[in-house]
Amino acid sequence: MSLIQTVQDLNLWLDNNGRHGKTVGFVPTMGYLHEGHLSLIRKAKEDNDIVVVSIFVNPTQFAPGEDFKEYPRNLERDYELSCEAGADMVFHPEVSEVYPSGATTAVEVTGSLTKTLCGLSRPTHFKGVTTVVTILLNMVRPDQVYFGQKDAQQALIIKKMIRDLWMPVKMIICPIVREEDGLAMSSRNVYLNAEERKQALNLYKSLQEGEKLVEEGVIAASKIVQAVRMYLERAPLAVIDYVELLDANTLEAVAEVYDDVLLAIAVKFGKTRLIDNKILKSKEERTCF
Amino acid sequence: MSLIQTVQDLNLWLDNNGRHGKTVGFVPTMGYLHEGHLSLIRKAKEDNDIVVVSIFVNPTQFAPGEDFKEYPRNLERDYELSCEAGADMVFHPEVSEVYPSGATTAVEVTGSLTKTLCGLSRPTHFKGVTTVVTILLNMVRPDQVYFGQKDAQQALIIKKMIRDLWMPVKMIICPIVREEDGLAMSSRNVYLNAEERKQALNLYKSLQEGEKLVEEGVIAASKIVQAVRMYLERAPLAVIDYVELLDANTLEAVAEVYDDVLLAIAVKFGKTRLIDNKILKSKEERTCF
Repeated sequence: MSLIQTVQDLNLWLDNNGRHGKTVGFVPTMGYLHEGHLSLIRKAKEDNDIVVVSIFVNPTQFAPGEDFKEYPRNLERDYELSCEAGADMVFHPEVSEVYPSGATTAVEVTGSLTKTLCGLSRPTHFKGVTTVVTILLNMVRPDQVYFGQKDAQQALIIKKMIRDLWMPVKMIICPIVREEDGLAMSSRNVYLNAEERKQALNLYKSLQEGEKLVEEGVIAASKIVQAVRMYLERAPLAVIDYVELLDANTLEAVAEVYDDVLLAIAVKFGKTRLIDNKILKSKEERTCF
Repeated sequence: MSLIQTVQDLNLWLDNNGRHGKTVGFVPTMGYLHEGHLSLIRKAKEDNDIVVVSIFVNPTQFAPGEDFKEYPRNLERDYELSCEAGADMVFHPEVSEVYPSGATTAVEVTGSLTKTLCGLSRPTHFKGVTTVVTILLNMVRPDQVYFGQKDAQQALIIKKMIRDLWMPVKMIICPIVREEDGLAMSSRNVYLNAEERKQALNLYKSLQEGEKLVEEGVIAASKIVQAVRMYLERAPLAVIDYVELLDANTLEAVAEVYDDVLLAIAVKFGKTRLIDNKILKSKEERTCF
């Protein structure tokens, strides 16, 4: 497998490894890979001839004071894990390669999708995400690109960007991967101390609580949100950022549960901000869509 | 030659006409073609195996009150002229095809390039331009794309967008094509009545006046701008929007002439707004770059 740092080498590699006539699957990541990322790489390998994984901690999606500098990094381990999961190439560009000096072009999705949830507490975040994803897609030019449902809002925004701008790529969104006890996999989980890690389990449990209510026939969004909040508040270290029940496609607020609604939460433990979500629907389980 | 209206048919046509292994040149236009456009098509044909011309009057680059509705259109004539000039396919999508219902994604270049010249009197214009060019490039996926130096600011902004976002296309900027008497070709020239058409010649003549001063050794930007303004004011119907001398790459204001500076003007005759420009440099003539 290859480790590549420049766009020039990336193009050379793709040409030499037969970009034409083969399908390319692409998994963009910020590294510090966990089972969630690896599930994307494995799915990409199932679907495509060639799999490219990018590892790039994107500065433009962090606001001043956020954890850009502290964000965990381990290139050697990421390279090995990517390889084991089926990647054919790891692309690890410098910041100066992705954003050459003087770069001032941005791609932005506006409207309901970006105005809610993480868009409220991180107002510049998604503009950074859509810009870097555009750049990486232009560099790699894959047939299919893979994202996780864990970042539900990010996935919807990127899906909309791809559709609005007619980007020539198919997007695949894969299910959340969880630790054995239910905590959603996240590179930021390493920030948690033992007590926070224990209490963080309430994120998943609170989502299950919401789901249980729906299964019992509760449809009022306010009641479900209240129950989830109460469950989260059982964890003394948890500081709730949001608990929202929204239309799963538009992210507009809903008053009552219907197919499909998204129950989304963000909670801080000290400086560590964790997110999780669940699609609530009455009948079938949600799978890779 | 083919006339195509949907992205699905566009892809089918490109696949059937051997996208792979052939080079595709693309000339995006708003139609009502003149010799300026045709020079781009001919250059594209020289450089590429396949030439695609798009004809799309893009609503998002017109502000309310501008001439979107009145913008001249003549598809049949455009189709024939494109064909004669060497185009292999004319792509003429509906507005609803380019911007499906609910599209809210934009591509924007910020900074000095967009803040000056036409960016001042048309503050939403270039965001519309960069967004539609991104969409059209994603649809056609050409190897090379052709623009005219007539819209100097547009060309610089698109060049920057392509570079900043690592778009996989090479941009070619071709020289201004003029009527025999010197008036720069523009689809909007048809708006001019006989007297306005006569006085509009002062645009080109005023640029020549500026160039003459530089050749005579004048380097103070203020003096050159003043001389150009005075020449333009000889035309009683002319209402000057701007006369500016700027760095030809960054569009930042300059105090003195050096290689390369851009002398750019915009003038209104009644409701018709015309632009023209000249690169001032001491030694060589500017050609296709």
